[in-house]
This record gives sequence, C-alpha cells and structure tokens, in this order.
Amino acid sequence: MTDADERTGYPPELRTLLDGRWRDIRELAREKLRGELFRPVAGLGMEEHRERVLEQLRTIAATEMAGHGFSADYGGKDDVGGSVVAFEMLVCDLSLMVKVGVQWGLFGGAIQALGTERHHAAYLPRVMSMELPGCFAMTETGHGSDVQGLRTTAEYDPATEEFVVTTPDDAARKDYIGNAARDGRMAVVFAQLITQGTGHGVHALLVPIRDADGSPMPGVRIADCGPKAGLNGVDNGRIWFDSVRVPREALLNRYADVAPDGTYSSPIDSDNRRFFTMLGTLVRGRISVAGGAGSATKAALAIAVKYAAVRRQFDRPDTGEEVALLDYRAHQRRLLPALARTYALHFAQEELVSTLHERHSGEGTGGSDERGQRELEARAAGIKALSTWHATRTIQTCREACGGAGYLEENRLPQLKADTDVFTTFEGDNTVLLQLVAKGLLTDYRQEFGDLDPLGMARFAAGQFLGAVIERTAARSLIERLVSAAPGRGDESDLYDRGWQLRLLEDREKHVLDGLARRLRRAGSSGSDAFEVFNAAQPHVLSAARAHMERVVLEAFVAAIDRCSDKETRDLLDRVCDLFVLSAVEEDRAWFLEHERLTATRAKTVTQQVDRLCAQLSPRAEALVDAFGLPDEWLAAPIALGEEERRRSGQRAAARR
Amino acid sequence: MTDADERTGYPPELRTLLDGRWRDIRELAREKLRGELFRPVAGLGMEEHRERVLEQLRTIAATEMAGHGFSADYGGKDDVGGSVVAFEMLVCDLSLMVKVGVQWGLFGGAIQALGTERHHAAYLPRVMSMELPGCFAMTETGHGSDVQGLRTTAEYDPATEEFVVTTPDDAARKDYIGNAARDGRMAVVFAQLITQGTGHGVHALLVPIRDADGSPMPGVRIADCGPKAGLNGVDNGRIWFDSVRVPREALLNRYADVAPDGTYSSPIDSDNRRFFTMLGTLVRGRISVAGGAGSATKAALAIAVKYAAVRRQFDRPDTGEEVALLDYRAHQRRLLPALARTYALHFAQEELVSTLHERHSGEGTGGSDERGQRELEARAAGIKALSTWHATRTIQTCREACGGAGYLEENRLPQLKADTDVFTTFEGDNTVLLQLVAKGLLTDYRQEFGDLDPLGMARFAAGQFLGAVIERTAARSLIERLVSAAPGRGDESDLYDRGWQLRLLEDREKHVLDGLARRLRRAGSSGSDAFEVFNAAQPHVLSAARAHMERVVLEAFVAAIDRCSDKETRDLLDRVCDLFVLSAVEEDRAWFLEHERLTATRAKTVTQQVDRLCAQLSPRAEALVDAFGLPDEWLAAPIALGEEERRRSGQRAAARR
Repeated sequence: MTDADERTGYPPELRTLLDGRWRDIRELAREKLRGELFRPVAGLGMEEHRERVLEQLRTIAATEMAGHGFSADYGGKDDVGGSVVAFEMLVCDLSLMVKVGVQWGLFGGAIQALGTERHHAAYLPRVMSMELPGCFAMTETGHGSDVQGLRTTAEYDPATEEFVVTTPDDAARKDYIGNAARDGRMAVVFAQLITQGTGHGVHALLVPIRDADGSPMPGVRIADCGPKAGLNGVDNGRIWFDSVRVPREALLNRYADVAPDGTYSSPIDSDNRRFFTMLGTLVRGRISVAGGAGSATKAALAIAVKYAAVRRQFDRPDTGEEVALLDYRAHQRRLLPALARTYALHFAQEELVSTLHERHSGEGTGGSDERGQRELEARAAGIKALSTWHATRTIQTCREACGGAGYLEENRLPQLKADTDVFTTFEGDNTVLLQLVAKGLLTDYRQEFGDLDPLGMARFAAGQFLGAVIERTAARSLIERLVSAAPGRGDESDLYDRGWQLRLLEDREKHVLDGLARRLRRAGSSGSDAFEVFNAAQPHVLSAARAHMERVVLEAFVAAIDRCSDKETRDLLDRVCDLFVLSAVEEDRAWFLEHERLTATRAKTVTQQVDRLCAQLSPRAEALVDAFGLPDEWLAAPIALGEEERRRSGQRAAARR
Repeated sequence: MTDADERTGYPPELRTLLDGRWRDIRELAREKLRGELFRPVAGLGMEEHRERVLEQLRTIAATEMAGHGFSADYGGKDDVGGSVVAFEMLVCDLSLMVKVGVQWGLFGGAIQALGTERHHAAYLPRVMSMELPGCFAMTETGHGSDVQGLRTTAEYDPATEEFVVTTPDDAARKDYIGNAARDGRMAVVFAQLITQGTGHGVHALLVPIRDADGSPMPGVRIADCGPKAGLNGVDNGRIWFDSVRVPREALLNRYADVAPDGTYSSPIDSDNRRFFTMLGTLVRGRISVAGGAGSATKAALAIAVKYAAVRRQFDRPDTGEEVALLDYRAHQRRLLPALARTYALHFAQEELVSTLHERHSGEGTGGSDERGQRELEARAAGIKALSTWHATRTIQTCREACGGAGYLEENRLPQLKADTDVFTTFEGDNTVLLQLVAKGLLTDYRQEFGDLDPLGMARFAAGQFLGAVIERTAARSLIERLVSAAPGRGDESDLYDRGWQLRLLEDREKHVLDGLARRLRRAGSSGSDAFEVFNAAQPHVLSAARAHMERVVLEAFVAAIDRCSDKETRDLLDRVCDLFVLSAVEEDRAWFLEHERLTATRAKTVTQQVDRLCAQLSPRAEALVDAFGLPDEWLAAPIALGEEERRRSGQRAAARR
C-alpha cells in the first residue's frame, strides 16, 4: 500500500455492509448517473435549473432506475425498500432528488396507497413514465403541521355525481406544492370531504390542474412560490380551487367511498382512525427524506474530510512543515464525531427501510398488525428528525471547516446546505415529529395512535402508562446478552464495554420517560389547565423522544457490526461506534451528572476518551468517507478532488527554486 | 394601550439605550436607506445583483452617510466608531454591507492606517467618493489564517526605483478578494517585501489592477470566484501578478520604508512586532463584522418573533382556539435565549466600538499604550467569534422556526443565513481567533503579542503565567461591588443575584485558564513534542477563550443596565440579562457540575428558571425586537409584516359564513 492507499483504502466488506440489502440499486445509480446531464452545476438561474431537473427526471424515468415502488401489475417492481434507496442515491442534485420524491413518492405513492384499481390502471403507468407529472397538494398556507385542520373542501353533488373542490380563503390555498408552479398536470388534493351535509374529515382526490397545453384548468389558479433558499430546481407553487368539479371516481377510495347518491361508507368507522390510517400509508416519504439527508451529510463530510487531509496551515515548530487541518484536535473534534453519528444513522436507516419493505411485502415478523404499523410510523418520525437535524448541523460544520473555499458554490457545500435546510421542516416539522415519537412511547402503541395534535398527548397519553418498557428493535438476543453481561450501574467499568454503553442509554430513556409520564398524568386529571401542564413539559417530551431514538440508533449500529464477518471491518466499526456513543454521552453529560449516572471524574474521562478516539480515527477518516461510495463526479468539489494537492506541489516546487 | 401596543410597545428609553452613543448615525440610516433602491430583493441574478449593490454604494457615497472613518483633513469625519455603526446599519442587503466594508473599511482603512500623507492626499478623497473602487488583497488561496505565510513577493529594484510584484504559483494567487472580479481599480496588496536580497516580512503596497476602461493592467490577471453561498452582490475574485512594477512610493510606508537605493528602515526593529503592529491597525474590520453579524441576527429574530406571535397551529383543548407558536414552550426555548444573548452581545459590541473609538481619538483612559491595543485586538477577536457563531446558529433557528415560509426568499431568512455564513470565516477564522484570545490571556499582554500561529502559544505562553487575573472591562466599581456583596460559593443563594452570576462566570474563567496554563507549561519545557501538547489542549484553549468572553459580555450587559435611569426599562433588561446568564449556565452546566460549582439539584433549578423566564418574557418578545429599530422596509418579510394576520382574518371571516 502506498501512503495514499493507507489513507483512503478501506476493507471491501465495509462497503458491502454499507451498501446493504439494496446494493444493486446503489451500484446501478453509481454507474448510470454520470456524464454531462448529471454533473452538479453551480449558479444556474431558476428556470434553467428547473428545466435541467425535469430533463434529468425524464431521463431516469426511461431507465430501469424507475418504478421500484409501484405494483408489478402496472409495470413497477414492487420493491418499496428499493424505491427509498434509489431516491437517496440522487446526490448529484438534491432538486432532482426532491422532484423524484414528489412525482413517484408523494404523487404516485398516494395514488398507489390510497387509490384502488381504477386509479392504478388509469394513472400509474403514466406517473412512472413522467407522461403525467403530478403534485401532492396537502399543505395549506394556514395549516402545515396540523393536517386535520386543512380547510379546502370537497363537497359531493349527487345531481351531477361530482365533487366540488373549493379554497375558502387565502389561508386555505395549497402552498409549497412541488411540481405545481410549472410542470404538474394533476394533483392529489387533500380536502375536507362533505356529503349529504356531513363532514367526514380529510380525504384525497385526483384533480387535474393543467390541460394538455399546460394552461391551468378552469377554476384552478396557480402561483409560483418564487425563489427559495435552495431546491430551486423544484417548481413549488400555490394552488387555489374555485368550485372545481371532478367526477365521483376522482376520490382515492381505498379507505372510504361515496356512492352515487352521496352515501358515505368506509371500512374504518372512526374519522380519526381512518385519517391516521390514510396518513400512515404515506410513511415512506419521511423515511426517504431521512435517507436523502443522510446522503447529503455523507457528501459534505466526504468533501470536508478530503480537504482537511491535504489542506495545511501553520508550521509545526519541530519540523517546520505545515500541519494538515485533519491533524488539529479542534478540527478532528468538528468532523469525526459527526462522521461516527453519520455511520450510526446509516445503519438505523437501513434497518428502518427493511422494516418498511417487509411490512409491504408481507415478509418477516412485522406482519400487517396495527401495532407494527404504529411502531414503524414512530420510528420513521424519529429517524427523520434526527437525520435531518444532523444534516443541518453537520453540513454547516463542514462549510466552516473548509473556510472560504467552503463558501464557493463550486465546492458544493453551499448547495448541500441550502437544499437540505428545509428537510427539518417538510414531511413533518421535526419538533412536531419528536412529540409524535414520545406519544407513541407513552401510549405503548396499544391505543389508537391518533392526533398529530401534540396536545392530544396531554389528554390521554399518560393515564394508563405503566412504566417504560425498553423494546429492542434490532438483534434482540445479541443486545440482551451484551446488556446482561455488562457490569452494574455505578461501577467504574470500561467505558468501551458495549453492554455498559447500551445499558446507559436504555437507562436514560427509561428514566426520562417515566418522569415525563408522571408529569403528564397531572394534565389528564386536571382538566382545564391541561394545556399548561403539557406546555411546561414540552422540552421534557422532546428529550424523551431523543433519548429513545438515540438508543434505537445505537442498537442498529451494534446489530450491523454483528452482521459483519471481516475482522478488520469489525475492529474499525467498533471504534466508530465507540466514538458515536461516547460523543453522544459527552454531549448530554449534564443529564448523566444531574441524575448521578456518571460521576464528575467519569464524565471527564468520557471527554478524554472522545479526544483519544478522534486522534485514533483521524488517519482512517478518509477511508471512512470513501467507503460511502459517492463517485467523484457527484462530490464534484475541486477542493476534495486533488486541486489543493496540485497547488501544494506547485508551492513545493516554487520553494525549491 | 391596545393589545397590539402591549405586545409591541417598548419603553422609549430602551431604544435610546440600544441606539447608544452613535444614535444620530442610526437614525440617519433609518431615514435615508429607503425606497426602491434600498428595498431588499430576492432572486436577483449575480450580475444584476452586483450592479444594484454598486449603485447603492455610489448613492451612499454621495451623502453624509459616508466618510465617517477618514481624516477630516481629506474630507472625512474622523469618527471611527461612527464608521463601524454606519456599516452595521446596512441591513437592507448584506452584500452592500460587505462591499462598503471592502471599499471604506479594508481598502480605504488600510491606506489610512498603513499609508502616509502622500497616500492619503492622493487617494482618500477618491476612495470616499467611490471614484477609485479598490481591493484589500491579503488572503491567498494557500494561506488564509496564516497571514505571515503569504507568498506573493514585492522585490525592490533600485535600478528603476520600483517594486516588482509576483505571484510565484497558484497557491499564492490572491483569493476571495472583494471588489476584484468586476469593479476594483487598485488593490492594497500584501506581499513579502524583499530588498537588497533580504526579506523583511509582509508589507502592503498599492497596485493598480485595472485601467480607466476597466481592463486588467499589464501583468495582472483577474478571475471571478463565481457564485457563492451568499453575498453574490459582492464581486469576489482572484488576482495573479506577473512581475508587475509599481513605483517605490506605492509602499504604504507608515511602519517601514525603502530608500531609493534599497535600504530598508522601520521605526520597529522586530519583523514580527512590526507585522503585528500593522495588522493591529486593521482591527476595525473584525469589530465591524461582529456588528454586521449582530444586525443580521436582530433582523432574523425580528422576523421569527413577529411571525411566531401571530402564527397559530393546533387547537387549545379548553378554548378550541388555535395556539400562537410563541406560546409553545419549545418555541420560546428556541427564540428567547437567543434574543437575550443578542441583547448581551449588542451591549458588548457598543462597548468595544467605544474603546476602539477612544483609542483612535485619544479620548478616555485607553491611551495609545501597546497593552491597551493588544487588549482591544483580543476583545475584537473574541466578540467577532462569539457574534458570528451566534448569528449562524440563531438565523438557522429562526429559519426553522418559520417552517416552510422561512424557506422562501421573500421572507428574507434564506438570504440572511446565506450571506452571514461566511462571517465565521472572513476577517479571521473563528477557531483561530479564539486561540488568539486565549493566548492574550495567558501572556497577560505583557509580552510581545506576536504570532497568529496558534502553536506559537505552546512555545512561550504559559512559561511565566502566574495565575488568571480577572480584569474587569466595564463599570469596574459597580461590578466589584456586586461581586463582593454576593453570597459565597457553594451557597444555595438566589440564582437571580447578579453578583453571584458574575462571580460564577469569573470563577469558571479563572479555573479553566489556570488549568490550561498548567497543561501548556509542559509544552514549553518538553521541546520536541510541543505540538502534541498544544494539540491535545486545543479544545481546552477554545473553552478558556469562550469562558473569558462570556464573562466580558455579561459585564457589558450589567454596565448597560446601570446606565439606564428608567425603571421599566431596567426591570425589563434585568430579566433579559437573567435569561442570558442562566441560559449560558444551563448550556455549560456539565462543566459547572463536573467542577462542583453547581449541585445536581441546583443545575436542575437553573433549567426550570430558564423555562420560567422564557414564559415571562414571551409576551414582551415582540417589544424587545421592535426596540432594535429595524424599519419594516428592511425586514421586508411579508410573514413579519401583517400577511399572516390578514390571512387569519380571512379564515375567521370564512368560519363565520
């Protein structure tokens, strides 16, 4: 091995493990998404960018990279997990990623999940081929997180057997809708369904929004959201409906239908339960966003780590040589714990995608029971929140770590930052999502999951909560064994003992959750000040969700290491996992100290060991980012692809003259 | 008072206090920077944006808003403090702010500070009028933070009495230079001065880079840096010099000169000391950046707070009314501690600007002694780092707090985020700057300040460090009195006791600094592994600087409250100050626990009191942001200026129908 190999070479099994179950889809994307059309480009105007992304999307639609998520009956591949992985591979331009998500994930996904055969046959082939570009018109200006509060109406008129879709006022216009401003021809519109004078809650209908020439349909008004922080290759828009009539059959009627005479029927009695069942089928969107955030984070880290390995600044006093940024402890501290967490989240994501896939294909033990579905939804919400916040924070750090060069569009970090910024917001605001996670834990999935409304929790969640039960999600028996073999709490045992680490995070989760339940129980009993009790506990709610998710992520990491048979890979991943856990413990060490889980001395030792792991892993950092398998053409940043090295050789040559 | 007044009204003295010593300049800017030309606009193309900013700059140059920082002898106002305040008022477009900073602060400022009468007379009037747009060509691609490592050369040729300026290779090209890509005609170029075969370190010369037609001068090559994350109204570029000859008089010769025969002379013997004296005169740039970051933070908070006060989501169970975002504890937690810290940094900035101003005008006690200058430089470095990191974090939070609306350019947050992102990098990378602060504390300003090189610290800093001495910077006697009246350490005294708060932060600073000195002393004694010792201590170095700066900021806040005679204003500011201190303590409570400065119980109480203060202050949040006095035209964001309220009335009207 040359020096460069030492630095960049990684054990082959590491790549295999990271590529995971859908490695073929990853390899295909690496091979196909190349050349001029898929090269990341900086500084495009908005219209130019939209045009380019549409062309990219059409190109992909014509290849075997499309159709993963759709029924084989209509030309798809029945591979839901594959559709998520294919989405996350669109790193070359996140506008393309999001546009794909809108077309196939949200628009097509809603037709697939909420529609019935008549919709599938009529539309899915044209959705897949991009002949029918479409929108997912859920969010309104006035109601984003609170989906049950949507105010667009779809009132059934038995005289003509049509629904009349209406936007009552500007607060109820559809907003931020991808594909709306320019390309979309049809929209899945979420509206309050009214028939025979009775409202039945939010349902979805197919509404044509533009004719074949691209002009808005009668009664439909469309406006452009205009320039955004990023994702300007996606044409987000606003839509108003002025008594727009669509046939009765436009209702996506898997979970509810309206008879010609206007009679409403549904296999699910409760409006609330039906609503959340419908929403639940759309869980893939959140999982996809988490995966996309992960990809962007990996790209940013790859750029920053590769630059830090060759960029040198300030002389080392003993040698007179300039020191590589990656050799500075402060720089290691910025990049390496973030890299370790990126690995952890990668494995948690892989596990989540598998769970989703198995529920869809009826494989595995998940089955189709409601409890399993609720667990999946909560997990998806939690991973989405963790991964997107991690992306925001890490890409920011990477930009700063690359200094002025990181501020230039040519080095991709600005675009990655701006594009992912809204990931913490769309497909569910992260703060709201974490409340959903906590609620799921408190109700232990036994009750109707109900209500996105965070206050709903205070109303009934804690009433019959009997105490936190840690339900392991991955490699149950292995983790059980590790935990029981670990030395007891309070012992000054080895910080590197995996069982001790697991137990530490479990114990935190249990304690935070039990405390939260005690607090909220007061809300259930005290009537009118329920809101105040809930509100005061809100930061506690968010901590509980974070503590839970961090434990779940660690278990996924431990399970992934266990799947790995190559010793070199295991050893490397063991160190990365140690860095993930110990830096997580360090970050929250105030909690461990306040609750006497760590002594002051031991907390300081944690900090020292994080330092030590950073130093140990920094020579392997480049190998660790290379193992993500992001082709140079996607990274695109000159500073990460030899430009800095070329300049340094120029400098060395000049110095010899 | 109506409800709206209650929410938005603030005591008049609060505005007076915030506007401070240079209130006339602030008022003038509010009055003049209006109308179509100064309206923030979204989605401009790069060239269009540059053109607009140039026009804005020329317009300002023709008014009484220009010239603050220049000698009255040449048409300026001899008001250095005023120049910083005028800069920070350019909130309508941060590209304009930065372009002003380049032209008058860096380019003009270098001529003023490093040049002599011949340069002043020849150029300053044309710099002020924008007849001569110019560049500050210090940074090279290969050397940014390490300014002493610059590699451009200026070799004196006695035969023609000229300097020959040369870029030896691509690593030494000037990079990220504002005004270079399009508008600049001349540059202050920093280069290694060589005469009679001897190098004398980095000096600055005036080099014409474009002729009257705007074509590059012979031997000068200029390239555009291209699109950046933000600040695209500033034309950053790269410059190469191929044996460009400039007359001997082009050397800015306040601190060093070269005689016609090539003899070098300087009033300062040591190359190192001379270099840092020269750099020190440029301290205003860092102070300005801190002020600019503060302004952007205020604008972002004003937008997010005003939106949160009217945006409602999810019903309150007892009333059925939707709840305003600002009433949610989690939302208060995101915005209010950030707002409190913004106040604290504002007062620290005002104090810093006054110190700078007094040193320049010879007022006050600072005098012109070297120690005072070094203190000022360290303070400027620290405030710049704290303020710009605070801006990055807070503007990010504000974007997220506004959800999808915060992602639209029309609501200004994307531009504020993207524009300020590089503030943590330019005028000194924050990590390097904090090392400078720590070094200043260890050497207690008694030694030559020397070396931007962070390793320099390990070489000599800790050798004769006798223990941290807390030197108070503001309202010395008041703070002395408060601290001595506070109950002793370890007591369960009132968390709201200002003396206790001050002492807590002092004590942390002293402890961290003493520990650091002990660590680094080993580096001084152990020779070859000095780098390793320094490197291992780097996170400790950064903590020491942060602890110091946070104490300084608190003292400035306390001093500002003391200047205030209106009881209502004092009471309000006292609560804001409590929130600043207690949230700072909360954030670093792991340290206080580890070092037994707080018990676990007391640490939990700190968290509870931060919650309580958030709840107390949230009804006053809008008044607190209004007091910043940012005109609506500068905020520009529809969501902060009544659009959301209009939509809600539409919704209410629809509900009544």
